[in-house]
Amino acid sequence: MPTEHIVKSFDQELEKLKRTIVQMGGLAESQLEASIQAIVRRDADLATRVMQADDRLDAYESQIDVDAVRLLALRQPMAGDLREIVAALKIASDLERIGDYAANLSKRAIALAQVPAVRPVSTIPRMGRLVQEIIKDVLDAYTERDVQKALDAWGRDEEVDDLYTSLFRETLTYMMEDPRNITPCTHLLFVAKNIERIGDHATNIAETIHFLVEGEPISGRRPKGDSSSFEVVEPDDEGAAEGKGEA
Amino acid sequence: MPTEHIVKSFDQELEKLKRTIVQMGGLAESQLEASIQAIVRRDADLATRVMQADDRLDAYESQIDVDAVRLLALRQPMAGDLREIVAALKIASDLERIGDYAANLSKRAIALAQVPAVRPVSTIPRMGRLVQEIIKDVLDAYTERDVQKALDAWGRDEEVDDLYTSLFRETLTYMMEDPRNITPCTHLLFVAKNIERIGDHATNIAETIHFLVEGEPISGRRPKGDSSSFEVVEPDDEGAAEGKGEA
Repeated sequence: MPTEHIVKSFDQELEKLKRTIVQMGGLAESQLEASIQAIVRRDADLATRVMQADDRLDAYESQIDVDAVRLLALRQPMAGDLREIVAALKIASDLERIGDYAANLSKRAIALAQVPAVRPVSTIPRMGRLVQEIIKDVLDAYTERDVQKALDAWGRDEEVDDLYTSLFRETLTYMMEDPRNITPCTHLLFVAKNIERIGDHATNIAETIHFLVEGEPISGRRPKGDSSSFEVVEPDDEGAAEGKGEA
Repeated sequence: MPTEHIVKSFDQELEKLKRTIVQMGGLAESQLEASIQAIVRRDADLATRVMQADDRLDAYESQIDVDAVRLLALRQPMAGDLREIVAALKIASDLERIGDYAANLSKRAIALAQVPAVRPVSTIPRMGRLVQEIIKDVLDAYTERDVQKALDAWGRDEEVDDLYTSLFRETLTYMMEDPRNITPCTHLLFVAKNIERIGDHATNIAETIHFLVEGEPISGRRPKGDSSSFEVVEPDDEGAAEGKGEA
């Protein structure tokens, strides 16, 4: 029965594509976790390993692109199967970007290990854990085709944005207190921004899962990004001059 | 001749998809230009208009996604036509992201208009012009299917990275000189980072054009991102305390 054979083989290829996405997601998750560890432990060796492993995520994305385009060309899928393949392309692109941000976090970890530690760094593991949970949940939602789980994760990105905005204010205050804090605090601001962007990519994946399962985009908009872009923090002249100020 | 009719209509739909990409690209380009103007002129009204117009880029992307998926489903294209559609999906995603960054630049323009101007802002229009040229060239390369033009644009992103890295150092020095510079300089750092990321998305588009025309990815890697992630700038104690230092 050649038709059944072809169908079975298509399903197998589709399953393989899904498995590759899940594996890639697991790697992106562990890259994020390791890069946060590298920052917290001031571990430049770990950071270097994360940067070196980023190629593997790029390779996963290329593989998924090739497999997806081949499936589109040879199998001419319809409706659900077509969405499955388009979703794989989109999710792979978001995971690759998450990997890029993790590699960038590791570059910052190397710079941060060379300068004195500053207190706002303590918020980073909290932000990191939150984003890791969101990624884990969207990957589970992908495996289980669980739209509600994807939507829950999508909504939680707001907590990340809130943490980022409060860290932004706190870090600016530290910079104003002592010019020696400026270099570490600047890297820290970009660290926090990168984690916040990783959260954005995780919500993109949640949106793709909604489209995949329901066949239409999420209705309603999540407010994008953080509000720190508008923040103006005035230096407290006294604190700045004397190197103190509220902690 | 129904077959010819179908073929003609497919070509027409493909042409429409390409035209939509070019229109979307033009809008992304003008959003970037306006956001840079808003920063330079300290024009919060212009910045607000840029932010409001970002919805139009999102709408373009949704339209391209829908059209591309419909073409894939109904026409089952092969080889070159298939790459054409996958390329449209990828380029639309990069242009949408460029629009997000332009909207973020405009948020920063609003914050920057409320604080004193700082000298490193003068580098921003230079960076902006360079990235605008790169976007213009990749869009021309897309219209003309000109791989060499795409590759040239792709290579020029390194100049953007270099400008960013030198602005990063200069800005940190300004922050160390006077705590009142910290808020404007921090926004400026993110402004520069956003422009640098827009450049990355423009190079993604150049890579997609290569894949579209040649059927394979660009060989060789462009070094990703900037080197400022590793930078450590030490405060010049005298300059910091006395509010001076080299300009």
